Amino acid sequence: MASLAAPLAKLIEQLEQLPGLGPKSAQRIAFHILSMPTEKVAGLAETITDARSRIHECTHCCNLTESEECPICSDPTRDRSTICVVGDPRDVLAIERTREYRGLYHVLHGNLSPMDGVTPEKLRIKELLHRVTENDITEVIMANNSTVEGETTAMYLSKLLAPFGIRVTRLAYGLPVGADLEYADEVTLRHSIEGRSQM
Amino acid sequence: MASLAAPLAKLIEQLEQLPGLGPKSAQRIAFHILSMPTEKVAGLAETITDARSRIHECTHCCNLTESEECPICSDPTRDRSTICVVGDPRDVLAIERTREYRGLYHVLHGNLSPMDGVTPEKLRIKELLHRVTENDITEVIMANNSTVEGETTAMYLSKLLAPFGIRVTRLAYGLPVGADLEYADEVTLRHSIEGRSQM
Repeated sequence: MASLAAPLAKLIEQLEQLPGLGPKSAQRIAFHILSMPTEKVAGLAETITDARSRIHECTHCCNLTESEECPICSDPTRDRSTICVVGDPRDVLAIERTREYRGLYHVLHGNLSPMDGVTPEKLRIKELLHRVTENDITEVIMANNSTVEGETTAMYLSKLLAPFGIRVTRLAYGLPVGADLEYADEVTLRHSIEGRSQM
Repeated sequence: MASLAAPLAKLIEQLEQLPGLGPKSAQRIAFHILSMPTEKVAGLAETITDARSRIHECTHCCNLTESEECPICSDPTRDRSTICVVGDPRDVLAIERTREYRGLYHVLHGNLSPMDGVTPEKLRIKELLHRVTENDITEVIMANNSTVEGETTAMYLSKLLAPFGIRVTRLAYGLPVGADLEYADEVTLRHSIEGRSQM
């Protein structure tokens, strides 16, 4: 389009690459940014870089945190003998909202999907095995998404964990099959924690 | 939520303020940003501030541009005797896509809406009158939205322009191409009957 200035076209193009933003919504946001006070725009840009630079993975559970150890791993009231394995940091938030679970987490940062190049080395599996070896863990709960990738990951991990003699469970099929954990409602999620079964 | 780090919570909060982004989509984008390479995030932040600082209003038509004069105003092939008045820079893009119009534009940056505090002084009306006074304009086309606010603005401007003896027109109302007559609203249908043309 002849009448679109270069810095604006570039902004729209980069916004379009964010998840859930199509050309129309990217354009809408870009024009909104141009109409915002300069200092607010500077603030937004700083918040973006700041979040990216200050947030990293917890040295234990690989969840995203600002400190070296995340608030859950450093909380003395949590049950340190149980690890709940999830694919994504957002899944930790979803489970925490149920107030049902009092153990620790382990965030894999993805689910196995060899077709998309997500092989075991791409996930935080090495870190999980390390934790299981070094600490006194009695149960590992698989809380992967109930998708093909999530199931595959859970199966793969339960086989890896078998030699350790740890109880490996997974969330009950209270979850609608094919759903993303992140969008599950709290009651369903709570039921699926209570009804977890041996793998 | 206990487990959401402060810089991340702040990012989600600021993203939620952008148009069209709810809590879920803001969270999704925020986590996506955290998973992007640092240099890409820095690039995005720079693009945002860059667009805001380098883009301003064209001194003639008030459209958004990188240079002092926008590409349309500085294009010698455009018909300089006709001005098409629109509410928003995106409307210029929409009309340009038709390749039907070869005149100039004037962007008001809003439509009159006294209830929301959008009074005539908030719009680029002074600038439009200045152009009409200083240049040899023969026609002003009102291309405001066909909403109450757009209509009000068009009516207000046509009264202001009356003393100049310029032809003031507005976009035709009628059925959208491809529409079912059955589903057209009565006001639109009435307008399209009134504005019927010889076949």
